[in-house]
Amino acid sequence: MLNGSNRILVESVKRLLRRGATTNLRNIISKTHAADLAAVIRALSLDNQLHLYNLIEDTEKKGDLFSELDEDTFLPLIETIDLDDIVAVLELMATDDVADLIGRLPDEKADAILEKMKREGSEEIEGLLKYDDDTAGGIMVTDFMAFEQDVTAKEAIEQIQTEYHDVEMPFYLYVVDEYGKLVGVSSLRQLVVVPAETPLKRFMSTNVFTVGTDIDQEEVAKLVARYDILAVPVVDETNRLVGIVTVDDVIDIFRQEATEDMLKMAGVGEEFIETQTVMRSTKTRLPWLLASCLGGIFAFFVIGKFEGTLDRYAYLAAFIPVIMGMGGNIGTQSSTIVVRGLATGRIITRDFWTVVSKECAIGLILGLIYALLIGSVAQLSYSMIWLALAVGLAVICSMTVAALVGSCVPLLMARANIDPAVATGPFVTTSIDIISVYFYFLIATTFLGI
Amino acid sequence: MLNGSNRILVESVKRLLRRGATTNLRNIISKTHAADLAAVIRALSLDNQLHLYNLIEDTEKKGDLFSELDEDTFLPLIETIDLDDIVAVLELMATDDVADLIGRLPDEKADAILEKMKREGSEEIEGLLKYDDDTAGGIMVTDFMAFEQDVTAKEAIEQIQTEYHDVEMPFYLYVVDEYGKLVGVSSLRQLVVVPAETPLKRFMSTNVFTVGTDIDQEEVAKLVARYDILAVPVVDETNRLVGIVTVDDVIDIFRQEATEDMLKMAGVGEEFIETQTVMRSTKTRLPWLLASCLGGIFAFFVIGKFEGTLDRYAYLAAFIPVIMGMGGNIGTQSSTIVVRGLATGRIITRDFWTVVSKECAIGLILGLIYALLIGSVAQLSYSMIWLALAVGLAVICSMTVAALVGSCVPLLMARANIDPAVATGPFVTTSIDIISVYFYFLIATTFLGI
Repeated sequence: MLNGSNRILVESVKRLLRRGATTNLRNIISKTHAADLAAVIRALSLDNQLHLYNLIEDTEKKGDLFSELDEDTFLPLIETIDLDDIVAVLELMATDDVADLIGRLPDEKADAILEKMKREGSEEIEGLLKYDDDTAGGIMVTDFMAFEQDVTAKEAIEQIQTEYHDVEMPFYLYVVDEYGKLVGVSSLRQLVVVPAETPLKRFMSTNVFTVGTDIDQEEVAKLVARYDILAVPVVDETNRLVGIVTVDDVIDIFRQEATEDMLKMAGVGEEFIETQTVMRSTKTRLPWLLASCLGGIFAFFVIGKFEGTLDRYAYLAAFIPVIMGMGGNIGTQSSTIVVRGLATGRIITRDFWTVVSKECAIGLILGLIYALLIGSVAQLSYSMIWLALAVGLAVICSMTVAALVGSCVPLLMARANIDPAVATGPFVTTSIDIISVYFYFLIATTFLGI
Repeated sequence: MLNGSNRILVESVKRLLRRGATTNLRNIISKTHAADLAAVIRALSLDNQLHLYNLIEDTEKKGDLFSELDEDTFLPLIETIDLDDIVAVLELMATDDVADLIGRLPDEKADAILEKMKREGSEEIEGLLKYDDDTAGGIMVTDFMAFEQDVTAKEAIEQIQTEYHDVEMPFYLYVVDEYGKLVGVSSLRQLVVVPAETPLKRFMSTNVFTVGTDIDQEEVAKLVARYDILAVPVVDETNRLVGIVTVDDVIDIFRQEATEDMLKMAGVGEEFIETQTVMRSTKTRLPWLLASCLGGIFAFFVIGKFEGTLDRYAYLAAFIPVIMGMGGNIGTQSSTIVVRGLATGRIITRDFWTVVSKECAIGLILGLIYALLIGSVAQLSYSMIWLALAVGLAVICSMTVAALVGSCVPLLMARANIDPAVATGPFVTTSIDIISVYFYFLIATTFLGI
């Protein structure tokens, strides 16, 4: 739906740029949402990008566009834009978005911008930059509506009309004491519903969820999702209200965290790399494959140890893929369930034994079923009962151990406060490969009495 | 943070239940959020669950609790609760949550409840049930604020105070014409900011994003995330406003879709199965492993075809794991990037050739690097240049083909409107296993001139 209309938009803009139809372009720009404009810009040459950018008349829209552009488009473009213009745009943006953008710039550029903004009096931004990107402090906005307890509903409404018309997402009014400490919250609707002269302290809710500035963004996001709230206030060590995290950022956090987890499990870094160049992408993926390569070389030496067996019974080799594959796949199942369960809070590390023993039981049952199937194939092909038994037993061992490793590793990682998604993917698969092959040849050799 | 305090809560509740301390329990219940109460209930025996449930005095809280309970706790509990009580609870809940709950019940129970609710005049619910669960119609709420165009700001505020005090998330006021067709939207804040006598049509925005009732929930969620809006209106074929989808549901959709994609890629069904029993979990995972098993058996026959080669050069077998592993891992990398890229909109099916050719280039480069490494190990171990070359070439083929298959398959699936996550996981890994092994033995046999 969106893609189709964007394609048409890109073609129109390109045509109008060729014709130099400035008025028409201005018209299109003013009617197009920044998210769609970003898609258009991405499809243009750098010259045309700058040209189109300069046609944007609304400074706030320029800011929205900055936020929407992906890094590969944003960085070259920003280099071509005048510093004064950049600062003018940033000054109208929400503080969290500014902090975000500046965090993406090369240090030199960032410093120049900050210096200029500070001279013009925005200490606020520098304050935000001091928090870690992935914490409540790093993602909060500092535009929020705060009132003292004795302010009446009517006075609050007046202030909203005058002072707070800039607030990005005004759902809640925060109530603070004389030291700026958070004491309550009210919704905009409550304000409209109560008699005009009621002071806030009479109808505010004192049961407020808050987070500290250093809380991990994922925890903040979970809180918002769990309690279906639209914004969560961020407080410093002394419970002073310093910002709010809004629901639109929470959506981005969840999507980003899910993407990161998937990429990490597949061993392709943390950042989405499709828009990166072939060389950068290769560099990101190289080290993860090294784990798998070293594991494979290790398996090679393991098999080498059984060369005597293999020389005499070469057909043993034909079962390597199926035994490795079954172990690898059930291991991936177990680790995916545990990693995602931990991320969504359906599994907690305290459940260690429950989860691991259940996974092992499932591994054993599935192992028995597939041992029967694969053992039968071996028997039908070679009519050697020892071979069928060895293959079957290897399948059972491989699948049970794989379920054990696949469920244990992420849980142990989580307990040790290591991100379970990072370590799980290549590590689990590779170690299962080695274990499967080792057990298989050990069992076969034992059966043969070599 | 949450887990710690929940554990203390569970212990206190258990102790109070043993002591029959009804007043204390009522006190705790009234102070505890439904999400936390659900965690407590989950940890109790069915008897105690019912006991605690009956102590809840606030009917609305009972409804919140229903929504928070997971299926395994909810289904047994609801069977023990009186039908009249259930209906009383459902009648105070938001329509989308009711539809959701009823959808989770066994047909017989659901019919009984619907019958009873209908007799008491809630056709609304049955209307909701007619939409597919995963569409805008299935997830929308029918409690929204709609006004005609000539209503003034002041009149609207009055109506909000009287008629609409029940609306779940009141951010936007929708403006409709005499036929109920959507013509504009205003925020609650705008209402407060304009002079009291201004009619809505003077300050409403006519640029409204809408979705049809049959639009997939994922599309709806993407729209909300893309444009940072808090609710999107749902319209029928004649553009009549029939409901809204709110941002809290969008968060749930994204989390659910990400979980589903991960589980599907790992071949563990669609629903999160950690809370399921060992038997149900085994049943879900069995068929996915069958794909891998059949693939493995196929690889077995492929190797069987090369038995002559293997009989004479048994050590060829020692390289099977590393060649399979390298192919499998780079294939997983490619398919994860493409599946997640498609889900987040960073990749679209139109990019087919760009994405696939880039992946192949990366596969080739990484293949060359690891061919050198693994080939060297072969050379150092056996000092046979033909073997080192065969192994190296097999690594290059395996990794390039894996990157090709891993990126092609999900893109082709998406083009054919098949969910790319479902088909990708076991299918890609298994086919790469077979292809890798085949190429390896083919190359080795050719080099040996057999």
